[in-house]
Amino acid sequence: MIPQPSKAALVPFVSVQNMMALVHDIGLENVLCQLTALVEEDYRRWPAFEKCARLASHSKLGVIELMPTSDGVDYSFKYVNGHPANTRAGRQTVAALGLLAEVATGYPVLLCEMTLLTALRTAATSAMATRLLAPKGADTLALIGAGAQGVFQALAMKAVCGIGAVRLFDIDPAATRTCATHLWAKGMTAIECESAQSAVQGAQVITTCTADKQHATILTDNMVGAGVHINALGGDCPGKTELHRDILLRSDIFVEFAEQTRIEGEIQQLPSDHPVTELADVLSGQAPGRQSDRQITLFDGVGFAIEDFSALRWVRRAVATNLRFDLLDLLADPDEPRDLYGMLMRAKVS
Amino acid sequence: MIPQPSKAALVPFVSVQNMMALVHDIGLENVLCQLTALVEEDYRRWPAFEKCARLASHSKLGVIELMPTSDGVDYSFKYVNGHPANTRAGRQTVAALGLLAEVATGYPVLLCEMTLLTALRTAATSAMATRLLAPKGADTLALIGAGAQGVFQALAMKAVCGIGAVRLFDIDPAATRTCATHLWAKGMTAIECESAQSAVQGAQVITTCTADKQHATILTDNMVGAGVHINALGGDCPGKTELHRDILLRSDIFVEFAEQTRIEGEIQQLPSDHPVTELADVLSGQAPGRQSDRQITLFDGVGFAIEDFSALRWVRRAVATNLRFDLLDLLADPDEPRDLYGMLMRAKVS
Repeated sequence: MIPQPSKAALVPFVSVQNMMALVHDIGLENVLCQLTALVEEDYRRWPAFEKCARLASHSKLGVIELMPTSDGVDYSFKYVNGHPANTRAGRQTVAALGLLAEVATGYPVLLCEMTLLTALRTAATSAMATRLLAPKGADTLALIGAGAQGVFQALAMKAVCGIGAVRLFDIDPAATRTCATHLWAKGMTAIECESAQSAVQGAQVITTCTADKQHATILTDNMVGAGVHINALGGDCPGKTELHRDILLRSDIFVEFAEQTRIEGEIQQLPSDHPVTELADVLSGQAPGRQSDRQITLFDGVGFAIEDFSALRWVRRAVATNLRFDLLDLLADPDEPRDLYGMLMRAKVS
Repeated sequence: MIPQPSKAALVPFVSVQNMMALVHDIGLENVLCQLTALVEEDYRRWPAFEKCARLASHSKLGVIELMPTSDGVDYSFKYVNGHPANTRAGRQTVAALGLLAEVATGYPVLLCEMTLLTALRTAATSAMATRLLAPKGADTLALIGAGAQGVFQALAMKAVCGIGAVRLFDIDPAATRTCATHLWAKGMTAIECESAQSAVQGAQVITTCTADKQHATILTDNMVGAGVHINALGGDCPGKTELHRDILLRSDIFVEFAEQTRIEGEIQQLPSDHPVTELADVLSGQAPGRQSDRQITLFDGVGFAIEDFSALRWVRRAVATNLRFDLLDLLADPDEPRDLYGMLMRAKVS
């Protein structure tokens, strides 16, 4: 009989099926609110974190990234790709997995699918930024790009910011229709629009989340009126932007981690000393957020490792009671830790 | 009924149990020879790889590292920690896991335990360096440090370089004894020594693999005679070295990737412009290896991402026929890739 792995060898693993079950157990809107709260909590303790721009491996077809961070107690990293052409072959543009580990021992404590979780935490982060920066009384969202992220973005706006109306546009009308159908089913008033220009009419919040890996101009300057808040999410890679440069010059720009956003975000179009404000500074009161009704605020969101850290913390807490995980035999655990070889040999004999 | 994940959602996973089974299927010595060949093959195509110093997160108790690389076709990374105090609590100093992905899609194709695999590939890399640099006719290895790495190091020397005699020393006599017992069982002549000084007597190859996270002096200058080849493996972190500086000054120093080794290796004791030779340059004939019988050659090994890449390639090939893997539901795979939300909803209904 092969000896079974000991408890120390086993790492909880949350599969896609279990992640979906977890979301349904708790309720999607509740999950989005919980994630927003955890992301905000972690951004409020910004100095506690080890921060670096993510480590990207670029190829012609896409990018593969590693996004680590640590608060000195927990360590996390995410593996994530971005391959826009993947959808043509029936695959996701973005697939991801993540790991949470104990800093004191370096031992992993959670391995987790993060394709779904990334969509959730990205929506939560936009909601946090919108709650912080949008004009008072905002009730209508323009959503440009109805891909994998779209529905989650809209639902987070409703759950966290109370924005119940959405004006949708995607270059693919079928995607616009699917997204609208999902949002109606969730009680949102989702209007399908024929152009980005039409979508932004009457919206106080504009969220762009398109996926092409190139410089695109989803929004031109004339489309953006005074007083709006923009979440620009699709520009998240060198050479990939969504907004016309003139919009950036009229906006006050807010970012997650300036060092990374200058490489990847919309602001790669601007000089490297163009002033931007980190969200953490607004949350801590060190920098102002929105200062007037006429001001255009722009969250140039690219996704930062701390958001994944927060999301993995959420999963750890959720599975603690919901038990939606499997145990993986991931860590070698010899009886005598210095005798790894002995463990290997006993596996043969038994 | 919950719909089962589709084939595209599933990623082969090699657990610790399956890794051990795989090694026994193929035979440990054969595995070490195969790994040495693959590591050498990959070092020979050095320019094809994306190379960076590993991304380290240091804490008081240890370090957590991410080690990515890519040859443009495959991408790999390893997560690995180094926590010397772990053994006191019955855990491994080093635990690791790795992932292989397709550059064209960014999709993971293999997730793998790498605690055992790291020990194997580290031994294979030392064997490759030794075959390249040791004096002709070397038949005796001095092995200082009989921890988790020790037995594998010795067995690789036998399997790859034909070195059948080992002189062992560890500060823990029980560890020395255990290691010797394993080596005798594998047909090696393993002599337990009472000091490092005694161990190096008559050895043409000296391998140091101790684990303390500090500057130690496992070897002093007087202990190292002319003509030997040294594999210095334990100095692999800032502030962690094993050899007296004077030994380095008498040696010709060979490294994996200079940029990383200058941060982590024995050569952190030397000025940053001290000449060193990358193994790849010796393999390609661009730089000389050993040039005389009196020369001291020193491989300042810290472990480099390409070795993990080679090791994961080995696993992929091995499981292709041996089927020692499980399938993990790791990737979200919606019927319509842009409709991630729809997949989530269908999981609830079903």
